[in-house]
Amino acid sequence: MAATIALPETELRAAIKEAVAAGFERQLALTQELTRQASIRGHEKSAQDVMEGALRERGYAVDRWQLDPASILSHPGASPIDVSYAEASNVVGTLEPKGGAIGRSLLINGHVDVVPTGPLDMWAAPPFEPTIKDGWLEGRGAGDMKAGLVAALAAIDALGHAGYRPASRLHFASVVEEESTGNGALACHQRGYQGEAALIPEPTGEALVRANLGVVWFTVDVKGVPAHVHESRSGVNAIKAMRRVFRALDDIEVLWNASKRLDPWFRDHPHPISINVGKIEGGDWASSVPSWCRLHVRAGFYPSVAPEDALTEIGRAIEEAFRRDPALAKNPPTISCNGFHTRGYILQPGSEAETMLREVHETLNGEKLSAITFPAYLDARVMALYDKVPTLVYGPKARAIHGFDEAVDLASLERVTEAMALFIAGWCGLEPKG
Amino acid sequence: MAATIALPETELRAAIKEAVAAGFERQLALTQELTRQASIRGHEKSAQDVMEGALRERGYAVDRWQLDPASILSHPGASPIDVSYAEASNVVGTLEPKGGAIGRSLLINGHVDVVPTGPLDMWAAPPFEPTIKDGWLEGRGAGDMKAGLVAALAAIDALGHAGYRPASRLHFASVVEEESTGNGALACHQRGYQGEAALIPEPTGEALVRANLGVVWFTVDVKGVPAHVHESRSGVNAIKAMRRVFRALDDIEVLWNASKRLDPWFRDHPHPISINVGKIEGGDWASSVPSWCRLHVRAGFYPSVAPEDALTEIGRAIEEAFRRDPALAKNPPTISCNGFHTRGYILQPGSEAETMLREVHETLNGEKLSAITFPAYLDARVMALYDKVPTLVYGPKARAIHGFDEAVDLASLERVTEAMALFIAGWCGLEPKG
Repeated sequence: MAATIALPETELRAAIKEAVAAGFERQLALTQELTRQASIRGHEKSAQDVMEGALRERGYAVDRWQLDPASILSHPGASPIDVSYAEASNVVGTLEPKGGAIGRSLLINGHVDVVPTGPLDMWAAPPFEPTIKDGWLEGRGAGDMKAGLVAALAAIDALGHAGYRPASRLHFASVVEEESTGNGALACHQRGYQGEAALIPEPTGEALVRANLGVVWFTVDVKGVPAHVHESRSGVNAIKAMRRVFRALDDIEVLWNASKRLDPWFRDHPHPISINVGKIEGGDWASSVPSWCRLHVRAGFYPSVAPEDALTEIGRAIEEAFRRDPALAKNPPTISCNGFHTRGYILQPGSEAETMLREVHETLNGEKLSAITFPAYLDARVMALYDKVPTLVYGPKARAIHGFDEAVDLASLERVTEAMALFIAGWCGLEPKG
Repeated sequence: MAATIALPETELRAAIKEAVAAGFERQLALTQELTRQASIRGHEKSAQDVMEGALRERGYAVDRWQLDPASILSHPGASPIDVSYAEASNVVGTLEPKGGAIGRSLLINGHVDVVPTGPLDMWAAPPFEPTIKDGWLEGRGAGDMKAGLVAALAAIDALGHAGYRPASRLHFASVVEEESTGNGALACHQRGYQGEAALIPEPTGEALVRANLGVVWFTVDVKGVPAHVHESRSGVNAIKAMRRVFRALDDIEVLWNASKRLDPWFRDHPHPISINVGKIEGGDWASSVPSWCRLHVRAGFYPSVAPEDALTEIGRAIEEAFRRDPALAKNPPTISCNGFHTRGYILQPGSEAETMLREVHETLNGEKLSAITFPAYLDARVMALYDKVPTLVYGPKARAIHGFDEAVDLASLERVTEAMALFIAGWCGLEPKG
C-alpha cells in the first residue's frame, strides 16, 4: 500500500490546536530549562542531559553517543576539528509505529549548541537566565534554536494529547557542533539516522529555506618582525599588516556579492555573501613591535561552490595583497581551515514534503508559505547532500540571533508548534496512541 | 675640602684594564645566570634573587623591598598599576667609603625586567638559555639590560681587584618595572636612594643619551553591535572599526614627527615619534559580528610635552575619527592609560659628570663620545626630573632589543665595563680596599 500523505481533517486539526495550546506552558518550561544550560561549544553536556531526560520521559528509544573525530573525519562533508569532543555527544530519540507504517518516515533535527554571549554587561538580563518580556522569551540560544527544538517535541506531545502518535518511524535528533563545524548532524547521518524527509525548526520567521550557502571558517596568521619601538620602522608590525587582510577580504566580499546574478537562488538576495572577521588576537606587549597576529574569519559562498575552491580563492587574494608590499612579501600569511568546511544546499522545489508543509502553513495562516534563501550555515546540508531527502527548515520568528538580548517570539512559537504537529500528522500519518 | 674629580693616572688605568679583562669570565658567567632568569613582568623574583646574592657576596649593604602601589601612586611621576606587585621587589646595594668621601656620590641603576619573547619558534636558540656565538651573547634581556647591569657590578669588582674601592657613597640599584611603568626606579627615588650623578648602563652602543621621550601606554576599547553574520550589515564589527583607530594613530605619528623641528633635541632625529600598536584582542567567535576589540598602544612624545596632554591629543584624534562615521559615532571608543605615563628628560650639556665620562671615553677609545637622542622610555627620567642630577645613560652595543635573537656584543661589553670602572674611579674617587 502506498503511503498516504494528507492534511488532518478539520476536527482533528481543532483537537491538535487545542492540545498545542494546552501544552504550551509545559513546552515553555522545558524551553527555559534548556536555555538555562550554557551550552557553548565544549559545554553542551547538561543541555543534552535535559534533552535525553525529556525524550526518555516521553518513552522514546534513546541513543546517546560521543562524537568520534576519526570516524567523522572519514566523511567528505566533515569539517576540521580543533577542540576536544570528550564532552560532545548527540542524542537521538526514536518512535517506531506499532502498526505498519502508513505514512513516511521523518528525521527531526535541532542543535543545542549556542554561540558565546559576548560581554555580559551588554545584555539587559543574564543570557542564561531566560526571561519572558512582552511576548518574547529572551536568552542566548532561545531563538537559535532551543525554542524550535523543544517545539518539535511539543508538537509530537500535542499529537499524543489528541490521542495519536506518528504512524511511521520518527527520529528526533538533538545535536551539537552546528555553530562551528556541522559535525554533529553529520555524525547522526553516519550512524544511519535518516528519514524520507527532514524537518529542522531553525528560527526562519515561519518561512521555508530554499537554499543556503556553503561556509568555511579559517584563520589567517601573519608574522611580523619584532623590534624595540624605537626601531619600529625596521620591524614589521603583524597587527597593522592585518589591514591588508581586511582589505583583501572586503574585496572578495564585494566581488562575490557582485556575482550573485550567476546564482539562481541568491540573485535576488540584497547581500548574500558575508565574510566575517569574528575574532583577532596578536602581540604580547605594548612596547614591542608585534611579531604575530591571528584573525578568525567565517566566509559564506554560493551552493555551487566547493569549500576548497572558496578557500583557495580567498587565500590567493590575501597572498596577492601581501605580494604587493615588499616588507610583507617575505612573510606571506598562513591560512588554515579550523571549523566549517561545508557546501551549501538547495531544497529542490516540488517535493511532496514541501507540498505538505505548504498546505499546513496556508491552512493555518491563510497565506502562502514564503521561501527564503538563507545566507548562513544550516545542518540541513547534511540531509540534503548526503541523505538526499527533502529537508524543510522552518521555524519561529526570533531576533538578535548571535547578538545581545536574543529572543524568540512566543506567538510565532505556538503557531510553528501547531504547524509542526499538523505536518508530522500529515507526513507520518497517525495511529492511535493506545 | 672640595671633592676631587679626575681620571685615574696611566698606571692605575692599566691596572684597571687588566682587572676588567681578568674578571671578564666571571662577569660573563653572572650575566648568563641573570639572563637565564625569565624575568618578564610579574616574574622578576628569581632575577632579583641573583642580584641580591651577588651584592651580598661582594659585601654591599643590601636593602630589598616590595614595591608598594599606594606609596608609588602618591608621586606625580607614577604610572598606573594594573598588575599585582606581590612579587615585585627592588634591590639596592650600598657601599660607604671607609675614609671621608673624597669624590662624589653615585647612583648606578639598571633593570632586570625583560619584555616577552614572542613566539619561541622565531628564536634561533631558547631565549632564556643564553648562548655565546660569534662574539655575541644571545638571550632575551642579554642586551636590555642584564649585560649592562652586571657590567657595572664587574666594574666595581675590577677596582677591587686593582686594590681600591669607591671613596664616596655608591648605591647600586637593581630595579623592576622599567619596561612597563618606570615605577621601580621611582620607588628607589622615593626611598631616598640618589647620588650626585646617576649612571645607567642601558645598551646605547657606547653613546651617551642626551634626551629621551615621554611615553604613555594606553588601551583603546571599541564596542561593536553583534549580530548573526547573515545580518552582519546591521551590526558594527568592533574589530574592523579598529581600522579607524589605526588611521588616527598613523595621522598623529605623522603630525608629531612633522613638528620635530620645534624640539631642540629631536629635530635631527630621522623619526623620533613612534606610536606602536603592540597588542590586540577582540571578538569571541568566527561566526558572530564581534562586539568588542581592545588595542594596546605605546606612544612617545617630546620632552616638552606632559603625558596627560599627549593622551588628550590622541584621544581627541580617535574620537574625531569615530565621529565621522554615523554607525560608530554612537559608540565612541574608551581610552585609558594602563602603564607608562612618564615625561621625557634632557641631560643638560656641560655637567661635571658628563665631562668626566667624555674624558674616560675619549681616553679609552681615542674618539669623541657621541650624544644621541633616545626615542623610548628610560628610567633616567626619574633621576633627571626628580633627583635633578646629571644622569648618564651609557652602555654596550646590543642588537634586536625586544626582538628575536636579542644579543649583546661582548667586545663592546668589555670596553664599557672598563669605561665604567674608570668613570667610577674618577667620579667617586678611590680609597684603598684595605
